[in-house]
Formats: sequence, structure tokens, C-alpha cells
Amino acid sequence: MTAFTLDQRLAADCHELTVVEDTHILLMNNRLIPWLILVPHTPEIELHRLNADTFAALMTLQHQCARFIESQFSIDKINIGAIGNIVSQLHVHIIGRRKTDPYWPGVVWGNPTREPYTPEQVTQLQTALQDHLQRPL
Amino acid sequence: MTAFTLDQRLAADCHELTVVEDTHILLMNNRLIPWLILVPHTPEIELHRLNADTFAALMTLQHQCARFIESQFSIDKINIGAIGNIVSQLHVHIIGRRKTDPYWPGVVWGNPTREPYTPEQVTQLQTALQDHLQRPL
Repeated sequence: MTAFTLDQRLAADCHELTVVEDTHILLMNNRLIPWLILVPHTPEIELHRLNADTFAALMTLQHQCARFIESQFSIDKINIGAIGNIVSQLHVHIIGRRKTDPYWPGVVWGNPTREPYTPEQVTQLQTALQDHLQRPL
Repeated sequence: MTAFTLDQRLAADCHELTVVEDTHILLMNNRLIPWLILVPHTPEIELHRLNADTFAALMTLQHQCARFIESQFSIDKINIGAIGNIVSQLHVHIIGRRKTDPYWPGVVWGNPTREPYTPEQVTQLQTALQDHLQRPL
């Protein structure tokens, strides 16, 4: 595995919660929406070109993150997206949506309304996520 | 497997190209954007709650559809999305994006600009997709 550098726009928009399975797990710094981003350490930019093992590990993490969001927040729907039109570094969005959130029923991308987390909220979510990832699926 | 009925909004917006692996493959009726939609025949609405076999089959189809779009159109990026805020029936978008398309670099969802395919274009894509799905991965 070559050295990995997180895209600077992802780094600016998000908190780095943890790294597992050669994958960064980021928290979008917007407490209006529970929103995690997986960034596998790969130069590939398309999901369908990942090798089978890397893709399977990424999907396992995607499911774990969706369950984590469900466990921590009262949500109505999970949204999954791999877009990459602006930030080409491969990343997968896992987003908890509520019918009362400010973007519903639209998608979250392209919407500038944001409220940052407090440092305490980030630490609480980081600890809870790390605990969640230790549990069997 | 219980009887499957395609959501009426998906049916109104799309052409039904084929059914494989208990999954409808739809073509969004908008020739500005190469846009396929997979609709597995399941009452489940969240990807992370599908059983492992159903999820794996869906991801294989997702990859095949992404490759099909790349083979038929000159594109710059594939966008993948499972949203379901408006149509809850589980469906996965596989979209070929061009830097010159009318929505770039934004996402396609929520954008009303559309141009329908001709019947001949739909038939050509349907035949090409069915041929593509017969080939080994």
C-alpha cells in the first residue's frame, strides 16, 4: 500500500473519527445531519474497479456505519452515495435522514446549510463509533 | 418471493430494460444522462438490511451496469446512489456523468431538465445491455 493522503477538501469539511481496514471514517462537520464518509486507501476512484476483497471490506464497513447511525440517532432513512464529481478521491457517503431535517426529501449534496459539532459531540461520537466497530456484525 | 410490483413513480419515469436475478433494470427516460436503476424484488428498503446473498448479487449487477455505461457512453465518472427519500422501494442509481452534462458537477437528483429517449434508442440500449449481461465479469 502506498502512502495515503486524505483529500484536503474532505479534511477541511470533516472530522477524522478513526481508521480501520485501511479506510478513514470521517464525520461531516454538520450536526444537522448524521453523515459519515468512508475513504478507502486506494488510488482507484470507481467502486466497480476495486478488487473484490477491498470492495467487500468497504461494504462491510458501510453496513456497520449505517447501523451505527441508526443506533445513535433517530432517523427515517439511510442515504448512500458514491459521487466523486468534485472530490475524485474515492469516498462513500452514509447519511442518516430525518423527515424533519432541513434538506428532506432532497439530497444533502450541494446544500450549504451547516452547523458544526462541538468538540465534545465529536469525541462522544468517536468513542461510540470505535465501540460499535468492536462488536460482531 | 412474494409478488413484486414496481413503484409507480419509477415505472412512470423509466423504461424497463430487463429483469435479472430477481432485479428490475430500469433506464431513466432522460437521454441527457446515461442512468440505470436497479430495483431488487424485496420489501426491504435499506441496503444494509438485505441478506448477504441478495446484497452480493445486487452489487455484482451494480458493477456490471457501471461497466455497461462505460462501454456505451463516453463518460468521466460513475455516480452511485441509494437514496429512497421520495420513492421508498429499494433502488440503486448507476449514473454516467460527463463534465459537459447539464448537471455537472452537481448531482442529478432534483434536477428537472430532461430529454426523453426515442423508442429506437431504448431498443438499442436494451439489446446492448442484455448482450453485456451475458458476458462473464
